[in-house]
Amino acid sequence: MANITKKVSWSSRADESGLAGEATPLLNGSEQPRHSRQPSGGDGIFQIGRLSTVDLEEEITSDEESLRGRPKEIPHNEKLLSLKYESLDYDNIENQLFLEEERRMSHMSFRCLEISRWIVCGLIGFLTGLIACGIDIVVEKLAGYKYEAVKENIEKYTEAGGLSISLVLWVVLNSAYVMVGSIIVAFFEPVAAGSGIPQIKCFLNGIKIPRVVRLKVRTTHILMDSLEQKDAPLKVKSTSLKRDFKIFEYFRRDTEKRDFVSAGAAAGVSAAFGAPVGGVLFSLEEGASFWNQMLTWRIFFASMISTFTLNFFLSIHHKKTGELSNPGLINFGTFDSETMAYNLYEVPLFIAMGAIGGLLGALFNFLNNCLTMFRIRYVHRPCLQVMEAMLVAAVTATVSFTMIYFCNDCQPLDKDHTEEYPLQVHTHAHTHTHTHTHTHTLFSHVSLLFCADGQYNSMATAFFNTPERSVRSLFHNQPGTYNPQTLGLFTLTYFFLACWTYGLAVSAGVFIPSLLIGAAWGRLCGILLGQLSSTGKIWADPGKYALIGAAAQLGGIVRMTLSLTVIMMEATGNVTYGFPIMLVLMTAKIVGDYFVEGLYDIHIKLQSVPFLHWEAPATSHWLTAREVMSSPVTCLNRIEKVGTIVDILSNTSTSHNGFPVVVQPAKLCGLILRSQLIVLLKHKVFVELARSRLTQRKLQLKDFRDAYPRFPPIQSIHVSQDERECMMDLTEFMNPTPYTVPQETSLPRVFKLFRALGLRHVVVVNDENKVVGLVTRKDLARYHMGKHGLEELQLAQT
Amino acid sequence: MANITKKVSWSSRADESGLAGEATPLLNGSEQPRHSRQPSGGDGIFQIGRLSTVDLEEEITSDEESLRGRPKEIPHNEKLLSLKYESLDYDNIENQLFLEEERRMSHMSFRCLEISRWIVCGLIGFLTGLIACGIDIVVEKLAGYKYEAVKENIEKYTEAGGLSISLVLWVVLNSAYVMVGSIIVAFFEPVAAGSGIPQIKCFLNGIKIPRVVRLKVRTTHILMDSLEQKDAPLKVKSTSLKRDFKIFEYFRRDTEKRDFVSAGAAAGVSAAFGAPVGGVLFSLEEGASFWNQMLTWRIFFASMISTFTLNFFLSIHHKKTGELSNPGLINFGTFDSETMAYNLYEVPLFIAMGAIGGLLGALFNFLNNCLTMFRIRYVHRPCLQVMEAMLVAAVTATVSFTMIYFCNDCQPLDKDHTEEYPLQVHTHAHTHTHTHTHTHTLFSHVSLLFCADGQYNSMATAFFNTPERSVRSLFHNQPGTYNPQTLGLFTLTYFFLACWTYGLAVSAGVFIPSLLIGAAWGRLCGILLGQLSSTGKIWADPGKYALIGAAAQLGGIVRMTLSLTVIMMEATGNVTYGFPIMLVLMTAKIVGDYFVEGLYDIHIKLQSVPFLHWEAPATSHWLTAREVMSSPVTCLNRIEKVGTIVDILSNTSTSHNGFPVVVQPAKLCGLILRSQLIVLLKHKVFVELARSRLTQRKLQLKDFRDAYPRFPPIQSIHVSQDERECMMDLTEFMNPTPYTVPQETSLPRVFKLFRALGLRHVVVVNDENKVVGLVTRKDLARYHMGKHGLEELQLAQT
Repeated sequence: MANITKKVSWSSRADESGLAGEATPLLNGSEQPRHSRQPSGGDGIFQIGRLSTVDLEEEITSDEESLRGRPKEIPHNEKLLSLKYESLDYDNIENQLFLEEERRMSHMSFRCLEISRWIVCGLIGFLTGLIACGIDIVVEKLAGYKYEAVKENIEKYTEAGGLSISLVLWVVLNSAYVMVGSIIVAFFEPVAAGSGIPQIKCFLNGIKIPRVVRLKVRTTHILMDSLEQKDAPLKVKSTSLKRDFKIFEYFRRDTEKRDFVSAGAAAGVSAAFGAPVGGVLFSLEEGASFWNQMLTWRIFFASMISTFTLNFFLSIHHKKTGELSNPGLINFGTFDSETMAYNLYEVPLFIAMGAIGGLLGALFNFLNNCLTMFRIRYVHRPCLQVMEAMLVAAVTATVSFTMIYFCNDCQPLDKDHTEEYPLQVHTHAHTHTHTHTHTHTLFSHVSLLFCADGQYNSMATAFFNTPERSVRSLFHNQPGTYNPQTLGLFTLTYFFLACWTYGLAVSAGVFIPSLLIGAAWGRLCGILLGQLSSTGKIWADPGKYALIGAAAQLGGIVRMTLSLTVIMMEATGNVTYGFPIMLVLMTAKIVGDYFVEGLYDIHIKLQSVPFLHWEAPATSHWLTAREVMSSPVTCLNRIEKVGTIVDILSNTSTSHNGFPVVVQPAKLCGLILRSQLIVLLKHKVFVELARSRLTQRKLQLKDFRDAYPRFPPIQSIHVSQDERECMMDLTEFMNPTPYTVPQETSLPRVFKLFRALGLRHVVVVNDENKVVGLVTRKDLARYHMGKHGLEELQLAQT
Repeated sequence: MANITKKVSWSSRADESGLAGEATPLLNGSEQPRHSRQPSGGDGIFQIGRLSTVDLEEEITSDEESLRGRPKEIPHNEKLLSLKYESLDYDNIENQLFLEEERRMSHMSFRCLEISRWIVCGLIGFLTGLIACGIDIVVEKLAGYKYEAVKENIEKYTEAGGLSISLVLWVVLNSAYVMVGSIIVAFFEPVAAGSGIPQIKCFLNGIKIPRVVRLKVRTTHILMDSLEQKDAPLKVKSTSLKRDFKIFEYFRRDTEKRDFVSAGAAAGVSAAFGAPVGGVLFSLEEGASFWNQMLTWRIFFASMISTFTLNFFLSIHHKKTGELSNPGLINFGTFDSETMAYNLYEVPLFIAMGAIGGLLGALFNFLNNCLTMFRIRYVHRPCLQVMEAMLVAAVTATVSFTMIYFCNDCQPLDKDHTEEYPLQVHTHAHTHTHTHTHTHTLFSHVSLLFCADGQYNSMATAFFNTPERSVRSLFHNQPGTYNPQTLGLFTLTYFFLACWTYGLAVSAGVFIPSLLIGAAWGRLCGILLGQLSSTGKIWADPGKYALIGAAAQLGGIVRMTLSLTVIMMEATGNVTYGFPIMLVLMTAKIVGDYFVEGLYDIHIKLQSVPFLHWEAPATSHWLTAREVMSSPVTCLNRIEKVGTIVDILSNTSTSHNGFPVVVQPAKLCGLILRSQLIVLLKHKVFVELARSRLTQRKLQLKDFRDAYPRFPPIQSIHVSQDERECMMDLTEFMNPTPYTVPQETSLPRVFKLFRALGLRHVVVVNDENKVVGLVTRKDLARYHMGKHGLEELQLAQT
């Protein structure tokens, strides 16, 4: 055993930088990326006995920028992995305090705990439903107000012939609205940008996205949603609630938080599409790494409550109190399975449409990827972001206006589709549906214009309706309502506008625009097929193809399959189309994946998030823990000098989060977290050198929970010179049985352990149980399957 | 390190008895249970270096009975855990052979592997659909034939007045049918008894239920289903397919097998209820311990293909080729959400009904539990089982006949429910639906009898229709079709008959009978509520309450929530009722769980299966691996004498399955399985004592796969005396990095590791990485939450 003591310098690379964590992940960046793995060999500190040798062998590259709230650079290089993201810890720290607490707990209190989990999930569902309902009503009011304004203006200018003034006015007004929204996002809450799905996805993967669960973000989202009126409730994943009640203090753990975020995500989807099962599956497909029956039931409960609450309050609002049979906010009208049966020979057509959707989706993602890279490089200042958002709003309005003006697809009014007739939109908007506009709600009433009396402009029906209404009319309108040129032109224009819009500094999603694009070209396909064949009948209804097209396009962009199938099934209230929708989504995914990743994955990648996929790369069995791990590691002794601990924690270049605890001959005996050490220092749980008496105060698990999740930085804790000489006994606070792997363990094996148990650190030991390294999330996320086999990403501090 | 060598005798308790595995788990037993943990301290063998010390210190309790195919005893004591069940091993053995094979595999072949997994899932779905379709058609034919017979007979005897002869005739005929069925089950394939769900549940939990995936069982099930006509396709979980194709040889692993069984289970449910999503959720809720996105998609694919195939072939059979919009085999008719909206004030009523369902379910389970205990004790001979089955058939027929005869609930024929009118059943049976009879299909046409002309007997409608049809008529019939007394009497009778039927030696499920009982009392509740209130309108439709009642009853018996909600939603084609159904299922589960476990869990428990639940008991943190593990363990050296290995494997009292491999000072360096050792012995992979040359033949992974899953017993391998002196080098065959835990690890922590990774053995090591014990499935399954806190089950060899 003598040979072990020769190793003097043990240090480690940062797991996560605890202080840069509050930085904003989105849309901040500049040109040059940091070079890789800087902090990998930080200063080494190794303690044997009382001897504390601080070897400053390697250069200290203190990233002072990262200590400020907002780092100025973000890597736009795809081959980088950011070190700034912290991990969540789903592993239970079974230290002595925990065991003591558990011993004190009766059988009854476990029951209570379980019940209060259900209550929290119920509350999450309730609040989500309530907020969704609130958004619905506010949006309704805004739409109503806008309608009054647009009506007056159009009446005024159509008579006078100065329609261009009308255009300019609305462009300006729209831009102003978008400006307000984007200012909020760009200056105050960058996390609120985008659809919120990538953030939730990362969170459930185990990455601490700062403030993703905070009320402020939610509020911003809600405000934004009211202004922008896009697929809002997807983002209503309120989990901030749980912190308001002291009785729920037991839930101050990452595990519980993750569970509640899952529930919130499910509840959000559930409320948005009236799809409780789809919500649960969404949450599971995107997030949960392991399936727990009770958890799933709770998530399902939250989803159900959410839909229920939404419907209940909407029923009150619509003066039909108590009628709960409404669907969610966004619904595409019920497909009648009787009249719209599909036949076997249509299946190949559906598959072909799936392939088209995959191709278009890949194109969309590719363009958006380039655009986002451009934005990260050049549009990282908030004011630029706001200007871009306004520009998009203005261009969108102008293009739309022009399209309508020059399109002469006038359809007679006498057909039997009064419900979809755009001039009646306002009356309907007051009764039931949620009006999602793509920054141009106001134009939905111009549609009668530029056509003769008794006719309406079908381009306007598609373009200037709320997207959700447009989708519905594309699904359900009588054959012949749209003419092919209009649909083609519409698809083309809208495709590029939607692509430009996604990723702006506004809370805008991609769901509804994708569905609209898909529905448009899907209906186009249907019409063309109808023209090709002479048999009529089956081909007569292009609405079916619009549905398939919508599924294909959305699938091609976001690449979800199971949950999307169920969401579509629930949103259309039809079970029959499950099989073709699934086929289409599968095809779209396979085709799309051949070219480029899904949109959310692209955005996650562009932010250099250390995202863990479902499985380790297939060909990585030859990589062992020895090659993957960070080594050397900063270890602590079981009874450690306070000064040493303070020094280790204060070291800015190596902001480790987990420290293996060792006994005399470097044998592993536990693992302790930075957060725990900080709490210990704060409460001054020191043993005096004489070791004669313990400290007065006995810490409890409650003290650790109270500090969660915003542990103070080490700088804020004052430790006097005398105290530095004291010792700290880590025995009862450390996790005495951390999961370990031998050095020869293959990467997939470590990965499986890590992913299945939601770990933050795996200690690598040699065959004598001595610490040789530490595997963290970033070590595993570094390896991924590239075009030419296994690739290794580089780590950067940004 | 010197102190370690003092430990001379290491031995271990059996993980699983490899040879008794083929024994039949169901309905074989006699009075006295074995006393517990017999083999726990078997003979110890510990090898250091070349020295082989065989210490036969403890008495050898060779259970010779267990070596025969059919053990004569089964523990009926609930506090026992049987040792005869083997575990499945979901952990990948990453030995050198594996790594070599992987290195040879190109990126392309990984793709091919993935694609062939999809193909297998597709085939599973296809076959399941095909079989379901076959069952449907055969049952249809049988029903048609029976109808002809019953018609003749009734015409003959009604005129003559000798109805009792008619009764006797049909009782005899029914019993004969049941006899054929039960003989097949009792004498040839006991695994085919029951609904098949407990078996699948155990398999997915990781317990090797012999022959559960074999074609013979499937065939029996199909035969049985044709005869018994109960909820058949639930059991059509064909996975035997995969073994027929040599190209799929890579799938000869427990992991892959488990995945395909999951897919088969999902496909079965999907075909039965036309509920592909419900099928996936069923499979996940009952089985999968961890969620893998790709796996879930494949399962979903299989489900979808299954429903698709079924509908396609049914559409051909019904001469409407290509119309794919049909639902599954069992469907309850579509609920129209417009007319059957529910209101807020109904929610408490639904919850109350859920509670009733929970109570009735608990009663059902309690009675069935007692009955099954009785059966295990006294009705374990096949001939007795057949006789009991026949008795049940006869009693059922008689009771039904009597009930109809004495019930005078005659309803006028002129009402508007011609579709449900029983005399027209036969015409409908020929067109579409699957006729599930509860051994009394024949009587469905007697219903006009015992009533005046122009009237029909409503008791007969409920009782002598096919159960599925009865459920549908209870759901959808006009208010006033049934009178309360009839429903009450029907519920009461059917409840006890169904309770008696479940667990017979026939392939009979509990789904449809439960739904029927629930629908009956649910409708009764609806009618009573309608009578209590004067407002009418909302209460006017008792069909809604029948649906809620059905959900409550089924939930109270089987205690599923999420998947059942979705299955009910899909089977009724209605999304609106999702929320109340979920509430009701939750309530039923909570209320029911207060009294007694779910029916499937009871049957699993009665068979003493070492079933692992989702989580370890809540209060078990104080239990450590040291207390849980089996110790001492039989260890092997890395280079071990062949004779020693043969002796260890031949030792009947300790039929271990996993052996830690150690190097000189008892340090863990790997884990090897019995099956691997047997393959090695069979191929004589020996190193001669001189160690000069290796064996001629180099083994490949293929050799191990070829032997899977029926490895020969050690007795069949002849090892000569010379060969006994040879050595065997285990280095390249053992798993070099088995998962280990330190001795102090708490039970929940070991449990989590075990469950999340699907392990079969966890090696317990001390702080010097020396083997001190082994934790297997049975060690973990022993601890469970009883009424008075943590309880420990006992292990028995039976």
